[in-house]
Amino acid sequence: MRPFEDSPISRDGKVLILAYDHGLEHGPVDFEDVPETMNPETVWETATHDAVSALAVQKGIAEAYYPSYEDDVNLLAKLNGTSNLWMGEPDSAVNWSVDYAAEVGADAVGFTMYGGSNKEVEMAEEFRKAQEAARKHDLPVVMWSYPRGQGLKNDKKPDTIAYAARQALELGADVAKVKYPGSSEKMEFAVDMAGPTQVVMSGGSKTSDRDFLSTVKGAIDAGAVGLAVGRNVWQRENPTQFLDALEAVIYEETSVEEALSRI
Amino acid sequence: MRPFEDSPISRDGKVLILAYDHGLEHGPVDFEDVPETMNPETVWETATHDAVSALAVQKGIAEAYYPSYEDDVNLLAKLNGTSNLWMGEPDSAVNWSVDYAAEVGADAVGFTMYGGSNKEVEMAEEFRKAQEAARKHDLPVVMWSYPRGQGLKNDKKPDTIAYAARQALELGADVAKVKYPGSSEKMEFAVDMAGPTQVVMSGGSKTSDRDFLSTVKGAIDAGAVGLAVGRNVWQRENPTQFLDALEAVIYEETSVEEALSRI
Amino acid sequence: MRPFEDSPISRDGKVLILAYDHGLEHGPVDFEDVPETMNPETVWETATHDAVSALAVQKGIAEAYYPSYEDDVNLLAKLNGTSNLWMGEPDSAVNWSVDYAAEVGADAVGFTMYGGSNKEVEMAEEFRKAQEAARKHDLPVVMWSYPRGQGLKNDKKPDTIAYAARQALELGADVAKVKYPGSSEKMEFAVDMAGPTQVVMSGGSKTSDRDFLSTVKGAIDAGAVGLAVGRNVWQRENPTQFLDALEAVIYEETSVEEALSRI
Amino acid sequence: MRPFEDSPISRDGKVLILAYDHGLEHGPVDFEDVPETMNPETVWETATHDAVSALAVQKGIAEAYYPSYEDDVNLLAKLNGTSNLWMGEPDSAVNWSVDYAAEVGADAVGFTMYGGSNKEVEMAEEFRKAQEAARKHDLPVVMWSYPRGQGLKNDKKPDTIAYAARQALELGADVAKVKYPGSSEKMEFAVDMAGPTQVVMSGGSKTSDRDFLSTVKGAIDAGAVGLAVGRNVWQRENPTQFLDALEAVIYEETSVEEALSRI
Amino acid sequence: MRPFEDSPISRDGKVLILAYDHGLEHGPVDFEDVPETMNPETVWETATHDAVSALAVQKGIAEAYYPSYEDDVNLLAKLNGTSNLWMGEPDSAVNWSVDYAAEVGADAVGFTMYGGSNKEVEMAEEFRKAQEAARKHDLPVVMWSYPRGQGLKNDKKPDTIAYAARQALELGADVAKVKYPGSSEKMEFAVDMAGPTQVVMSGGSKTSDRDFLSTVKGAIDAGAVGLAVGRNVWQRENPTQFLDALEAVIYEETSVEEALSRI
Repeated sequence: MRPFEDSPISRDGKVLILAYDHGLEHGPVDFEDVPETMNPETVWETATHDAVSALAVQKGIAEAYYPSYEDDVNLLAKLNGTSNLWMGEPDSAVNWSVDYAAEVGADAVGFTMYGGSNKEVEMAEEFRKAQEAARKHDLPVVMWSYPRGQGLKNDKKPDTIAYAARQALELGADVAKVKYPGSSEKMEFAVDMAGPTQVVMSGGSKTSDRDFLSTVKGAIDAGAVGLAVGRNVWQRENPTQFLDALEAVIYEETSVEEALSRI
Repeated sequence: MRPFEDSPISRDGKVLILAYDHGLEHGPVDFEDVPETMNPETVWETATHDAVSALAVQKGIAEAYYPSYEDDVNLLAKLNGTSNLWMGEPDSAVNWSVDYAAEVGADAVGFTMYGGSNKEVEMAEEFRKAQEAARKHDLPVVMWSYPRGQGLKNDKKPDTIAYAARQALELGADVAKVKYPGSSEKMEFAVDMAGPTQVVMSGGSKTSDRDFLSTVKGAIDAGAVGLAVGRNVWQRENPTQFLDALEAVIYEETSVEEALSRI
Repeated sequence: MRPFEDSPISRDGKVLILAYDHGLEHGPVDFEDVPETMNPETVWETATHDAVSALAVQKGIAEAYYPSYEDDVNLLAKLNGTSNLWMGEPDSAVNWSVDYAAEVGADAVGFTMYGGSNKEVEMAEEFRKAQEAARKHDLPVVMWSYPRGQGLKNDKKPDTIAYAARQALELGADVAKVKYPGSSEKMEFAVDMAGPTQVVMSGGSKTSDRDFLSTVKGAIDAGAVGLAVGRNVWQRENPTQFLDALEAVIYEETSVEEALSRI
Repeated sequence: MRPFEDSPISRDGKVLILAYDHGLEHGPVDFEDVPETMNPETVWETATHDAVSALAVQKGIAEAYYPSYEDDVNLLAKLNGTSNLWMGEPDSAVNWSVDYAAEVGADAVGFTMYGGSNKEVEMAEEFRKAQEAARKHDLPVVMWSYPRGQGLKNDKKPDTIAYAARQALELGADVAKVKYPGSSEKMEFAVDMAGPTQVVMSGGSKTSDRDFLSTVKGAIDAGAVGLAVGRNVWQRENPTQFLDALEAVIYEETSVEEALSRI
Repeated sequence: MRPFEDSPISRDGKVLILAYDHGLEHGPVDFEDVPETMNPETVWETATHDAVSALAVQKGIAEAYYPSYEDDVNLLAKLNGTSNLWMGEPDSAVNWSVDYAAEVGADAVGFTMYGGSNKEVEMAEEFRKAQEAARKHDLPVVMWSYPRGQGLKNDKKPDTIAYAARQALELGADVAKVKYPGSSEKMEFAVDMAGPTQVVMSGGSKTSDRDFLSTVKGAIDAGAVGLAVGRNVWQRENPTQFLDALEAVIYEETSVEEALSRI
C-alpha cells in the first residue's frame, strides 16, 4: 500500500478534497443558488486555496482546466460517475481509464462503490481493475464508499457506514470517503473499522457554518484525516473564508469557535 | 482538451455539421419528400457548400464516398447509431471503431449518448473508450447528447437540455449537440452549463425557412457555435440557397431577415 | 469500400451465391425431398457450375471440403448462424472468426443481421468487428439483412426491405442480401436505398421454375446484381440445368422464356 | 479439417472414449454402486485397456493423474462442464482453456453444446473460440452435441439427434457425440447428416451387457466410428472384460454373441 | 498439479489457514465480541503462531500488513469476496488479480465457488482464469467450495458437501475448503470424493472449545489435512492458547483431551 502521507494529496497527513462532479451527478440544480459555480473556473480558482489538497473532477473538466492549474491544484481523477436521470439499482459508469488519468496528470484517483447495490459485484470488479492500474502508476486510491440499493433500508446507520469504511480497506483503497454517521463516537467506529485506510468525511448537502464545522470537528476528533466537500464550500457566498475555517479545524485542529472567527 | 478551434471542422470557431445518418436511424421515410436525397451523392454534393464544416455519416457511407470528396468535405465519423425497428430502452450500437475511422480519414468523431436511459451506464463506458481513442488520434469528439428513456418524462425541458450539455462537458466531449430548448435564454443556460465544451443546436424535423433560421439565430445569440442539421437542409428543394442563409446567420451573425434575403 | 466488381465473387459485376447453411439453420427437414443433398459433396459439385460465383457455407463444411474445391469454387464464409431449436428474440452466433476464415481461404464473408430484433444492437456490434476485420483482409462483406423480432409485425413490407438494404449500406456491407418485396418496382426501391451497396435477392422456399425465374428477372430488372439461393437450386431434381437458366437470366439478362428453354 | 484418422484418439479410424466427468456433472450418486470408482485412479487404470482410445476428463483430474499415465492413456480434455446443482436453461462453464489443455498434454479436446437452449448462441461462440484454438494446436475437436432446453420437448427424437450431429459438422467439430436414437436405421440418419464429421454414440445410463452391446453394434452398423462411454463401463463389476467385449464389437465388428463370449 | 506438500502453506502435509476476510463478508458484527480484532494487526500477530500455515486475507489487508509480516506469515490471497449487504443469487466479486497477488507476495490463492447458484457457470469461468494464472505463478489454489442458491434446499447434506469437494478436484483446486457435514464418517466421504485434492474443514461460527476441537479431530480422523478457521480462533479471548490446542489436534494428531490440556 502506497503511503498516503507521501502523496501530493496529503498535507501533513491531512486532506481536504474539494469535489466538483455535481454537474454530472446532480445536474443544474446544484448550481441554482450560486450560479457562477456552474462555471468550472470559479471552482478551480477556489481550489487554489491552500486548504484544498486535491480537486476531484470528472475527465472532461480535468482536460479543459487542469493544464492551466497544474501548478496550483492537485488533481484527483474521479474515475466513475453517472447522471441521476435514469432509474434502477445504483451503478456508476467508468468514464475515465487510469492510464489516461495518469497521462492527464492525476495525483490520485477516486472511485464510487455502491455496496449493497445489486450491481455491487460488477462495481467491485471494475474497482479491482482501477485499483491495480493505479498501483502501477503509484497513484493513491480514494473510494467514495456509499452503501445503497434494494438490500439496504437505511444507508446512514453507523454499522452500515463502518461496513462501508471496511470495504474500502479490504478492497484496497488508501482513503475511504464515508458519510458522517451522526456523532464523533460513531465516526470513530468507522475510522477503527477502516484500520490503515484513511477516512475522510463526506460533506453532503449544505448546512450552516457552525453545524458543518462542528461535524468536521467531530470527524477529525474521531480520527478522520479530513474532508471531501463540495456544496458546503462552493455553494457558500464566501468559499475562501470558509476554507480558512476548514483549514483551522482540519490542519490546526482548532475549536469550532476559533475556526468560525476566521470567516 | 484539444482546441476545437484548430480542428478542420471549425471555421473561425463556428461549425455547421450536415448530418446524414437518417437512412440508418429513421429508414426510408425521411427520403419520401425529396427522393433524390436517398442517393448519398446528392447530400455529399450539398456538403461541398462552404457553409458546411463537416458531414456526419455512418461508416458505410464514408467508405463509399469519402475518397471522392476528401478534398471538399470534412468527415465527421458518426461512431454509433441504430435503426428504429426495435423496441426497448434507448441504446445505440457502436458501428465504427475510432482506429478505423481515423484510417478512413475522419476529421472528427460523433457519438450519441442517451442520458436517462437504463443503458446510460453502458453507453457512457462505450463513450469513454471512443473518447480516449479519439484523443490518441487527436480527433475532436462531438456528443449527440439526447436524454431519453424510462426515467424521463419530457426530454425538452430546459433543465434536461442543460443537464445534457453538462454531461458532454463532464465526460470529455469537445462539442455537445443538444436540442433547442425553445428560447435563446434557455439555450444560453445550456451553453453556460457546457462551459468550455462548445454547443451546437440540433436541427430536428423540418420547419419553415423563417422559423428555422430564427431558431438558429436564437442559438447563436445564446452562444452556441453553430448547428448540426440534416432534414432542415436536404429535405428542402433548395438546400444550397438555404445553406447560404445558414452561412449568414452562423458565420456572419446576420439578422434573420438578411439571411432570408440570401435564399 | 473495396470494389465488389474486382472480387472473385463477382462475374462481370453480377453474382450468384449458392447458399448451403440450411443444415445448421433449419436442420434435416430441408434435405427431406432430395436426400442426397444432405451430403455436402453433392452441393459442392453443384457449386462448380459456372453460374455460381460463390458458395456460402459455415466453417465446418468449408474446412472439410474447400481444400478439394479451391480451384473450382469461390468460398463465401458465412460467419454467423444458429439452429432453429431455441426460442427468443432473433439472434445468431458468430461461429467463425474472420482471421480464421481468411486462413481457410475465404474469398468473401457473410453475416446475418436481424434488424428490429431486441438483439440488433449486439448483432450490429459483432458485425462491426467482422466488417473491420474483413477490410484488413480485403474481403468483401455480404450482409444477410433480415428484419425480424418483437418490434416488427411484417418483415416483407417494401419499406422494411428497403430499410434493411439501407442498413447494409450504412453499416458498411458491400453486398446486401434481402428478401424480394413482391414486385420489381418495390425491389428497385430497395436497390435505390442501398445506393453503392450491391443488392442480391434472397431465394427463399422452393417455388416453380417459372415463378422463381420471373422473380429473379424482376430483381435483375430492378437493378439487383444477382441472387443468393439455396433450396431453389439444390432442392430441384435438376440443379445444373436450373443453374443454366439462372445464368441466362442473371448474366445474359435474357427473358424468362428464353431461360426456361435452357432447362 | 484435421484428419481424425491420424490423431492419437483414433485406432484405425475407430474410437472408444472413456468418459469420466461424472463427478462434476452428476456428483456422488454416480459412484454409489461401485464406490471405488470414486477414486479416479481406478478409472485411469481401466483406461489403460487397449480398447480405450481416449479418456475424457476435466482439468483437475487430468492435472493430477495424466503425468503418471501419459504413456498409457490418450487424454481428451473436456473443456466445459458444470454441476447439476443449479437450475435454469442448460449451460456449461468453460473450465479449461485450450492453450492450457495443450500444455497439460491433451491429445484432443471435448466441448458440450446444448443446441436448443436459450444459451445456444453464447455456447456456440465459446465453442468457436475453443475450436479455432484447437486448430492452432492441431488437436481434434469432439462435440458432445446434446439438444435440450425450453425450446425442445423431446431431445431423443431421431430428427433432433440428426440435427445435433449436423450442428457438430457445421460448427467445425471433427467428432460428434450424440445419443442413440433407438435404432440402427435412425442412427444412420444422424451419421449421414454428420457427413465427414465422425459420429460416436453416447453411452448413457447403465443397461445390461447384451442390451448395451446390441446398441453399440447398431451404432457401428450405422456407420458410427465408435462410442463414448462412462457408466456402462466403470459402473460394472468387470469393466476390463466388458471393454474386451466392446473392443470386439467396435474394432473387430463382431456379432454381439461373439462379443458377449469375451466377457 | 503442483504438489501441495511442497508449498509454504503446508507444514508436513498439514494446513491451518487462519481466515480473516470477515470485515468484507460479514461487516462489523463479527468483531463485536472481541473489538480489538477489528484491528487487522491483532490477527496478523495471532497468525505468527507456528500452527498457522497461512493467513487468508483480501487484497487491501495484504497490501497494508504483509510487508511487515512477510518473514513470519504465509500469505493466502483470497481473490474474491463480497459484502452481505446486497440480495440475489450467491455471487462473489473477483477483487484481486492473480498477477498482482503474486506481485504482493502471495504463497497461495483462494477462491470462493458457490456451486448451485444461478451464477455457478460465471463463477466457474472466473475460477478457470484464476486457476490457470495461478499455475503460471506456481501458486497452490484453495477453493472455498460452498454450494448455495436457489437450486439448493440444504447446503449441509453430506452428499452436497461431498459434491462440493469433488467440484474442487474436477475444476483444478489443490485444496478444498468444505463445511463439516456432522460426523467424521460423512467427512471421510467428502475426503474420498476429493481424491488427490486435499480437504480442509471450514471453521464456521464460534462454538465451545471442546466442541470445536472434537469437530476438528473428526475431520482429521476422516483424512482432512487441516482446517481453515476464523472466528473460532480470533473471537476467543485466548487465540494463542487455542492455536496450541489446534496444533496438537492437527499436526500431532493428539486426542481432544490432550489438546484441551494445552489451553
